[in-house]
Amino acid sequence: METVSEKRCFEGTQGVYRHASRATGTEMTFGLYLPPGPGPHPVLWFLAGLTCTHENAMVKAAAQLHAAEAGLALVFPDTSPRGEGVADDEAFDMGQGAGFYVDATEEPWAPHFKMWSYIADELPELLSAEFPLEMGRQGITGHSMGGHGALTLGMGLKGRFASLSAFAPICQPTQSDWGRKQFTGYLGADESKWLAHDATHLMETEGFEGEVLVDTGAADEWGEGLLRSSALGGAMAKRGQPGAFRMQAGYDHSYFFVQSFIGEHIAFHAEHLW
Amino acid sequence: METVSEKRCFEGTQGVYRHASRATGTEMTFGLYLPPGPGPHPVLWFLAGLTCTHENAMVKAAAQLHAAEAGLALVFPDTSPRGEGVADDEAFDMGQGAGFYVDATEEPWAPHFKMWSYIADELPELLSAEFPLEMGRQGITGHSMGGHGALTLGMGLKGRFASLSAFAPICQPTQSDWGRKQFTGYLGADESKWLAHDATHLMETEGFEGEVLVDTGAADEWGEGLLRSSALGGAMAKRGQPGAFRMQAGYDHSYFFVQSFIGEHIAFHAEHLW
Repeated sequence: METVSEKRCFEGTQGVYRHASRATGTEMTFGLYLPPGPGPHPVLWFLAGLTCTHENAMVKAAAQLHAAEAGLALVFPDTSPRGEGVADDEAFDMGQGAGFYVDATEEPWAPHFKMWSYIADELPELLSAEFPLEMGRQGITGHSMGGHGALTLGMGLKGRFASLSAFAPICQPTQSDWGRKQFTGYLGADESKWLAHDATHLMETEGFEGEVLVDTGAADEWGEGLLRSSALGGAMAKRGQPGAFRMQAGYDHSYFFVQSFIGEHIAFHAEHLW
Repeated sequence: METVSEKRCFEGTQGVYRHASRATGTEMTFGLYLPPGPGPHPVLWFLAGLTCTHENAMVKAAAQLHAAEAGLALVFPDTSPRGEGVADDEAFDMGQGAGFYVDATEEPWAPHFKMWSYIADELPELLSAEFPLEMGRQGITGHSMGGHGALTLGMGLKGRFASLSAFAPICQPTQSDWGRKQFTGYLGADESKWLAHDATHLMETEGFEGEVLVDTGAADEWGEGLLRSSALGGAMAKRGQPGAFRMQAGYDHSYFFVQSFIGEHIAFHAEHLW
């Protein structure tokens, strides 16, 4: 593992690191914020959305102030493998920058697009080995495609995460143009293989052991058609899932929305992680 | 004036606006954060550094949370005129993105590089006409080249600003490679014309009526050679300037440094503006 940069931030350290990934077969870069103190620190994952790298949320979510106060480390993974030998697509919502947090089984994506394994297995191992983190206390959140990732990893990896939240998540990708094209490409035409990656299906069938907090802007420019917020909100209500599904009046899909509520989300996670 | 975008942020509005500037003879773009409530709101200017547009501090300084709480509007101007007909230089620290907050008198810069007049006169008039702002209550801050701008406008426009702060400012441009080249280009070889734009000279001869707060990272990678922090720190001490000149251990020049202290700066300004 190589240190790209380490910058002091709220008396902690905002680092960027690069490593050769077994899962993706590429170099992967991630951001890690360590709060003040020697640790070990509980860990909050932030999965980013379409077109993002490790950098977007790290720079634009204004999360470090709250993480420093709450004593949580923040992990900012990349959203896909990258590089010249890695498959890509001209669309912004497919290929590099759009891994959708699945392990691709279909060509040309299968050789490198293994983001589920990378986030679920490889990166936690690396973090545990290299940094003063309390991997027994993890929470997960994310934005848009990363909200989809947080919800599916959070519900899919039972017992892994003590707290789960999301900002403007893609809630039902199996029924959305943000999902059907990508799952067809990455996972193939057999839609039964998609269900493990559909947050609404997981909520209907499994739920989450702890509380779930979801915030979505009522003025989100991508809207119900792509996010399908009503499906997840309805499923949470039907299950009686502890937590809150909130629509926030006037807010759009941007990081100005995310930063407006990141403090509440980090406080929510800290409550379950400490 | 044209609205480029308006996004809800901490129950206020982060806007971006564009207008034809008389001062620069170009289209100019600026960001304006309006906190919740009808106003009129006191105004805090944030002048950005080399290579920045209106966007950098608006996205990366994590200032809106604090401004919303303090009830201050934030203005994020661009750092120079831009466009095809505007002079430029290959260096990142000269020309477009590097206006140094002066009115250029020399060719090829004189036709458009009028950032002093733009910030001091034209943009305040526009803001006053278009937004619910209390222009009798203004503070100013900035980062790096923008810290230089904040200090020189703050001390140069007597009575305009009730509060003055800076992050890692260029403190003595007349003696720095961040200043001598630019002032020669923009203002000509007569160094006496540079002095109105040298914060250390202004501190030695004028000072500021109120308190001044300066934070600079002790691990700033540009360091004493370019910033010349010791000159301004010494001048503040010699004058007995009310306020604080602080070196912050471990912090570098980045916006991770700025966001770590922006809360204290906004609280400082709010104390003087409310």
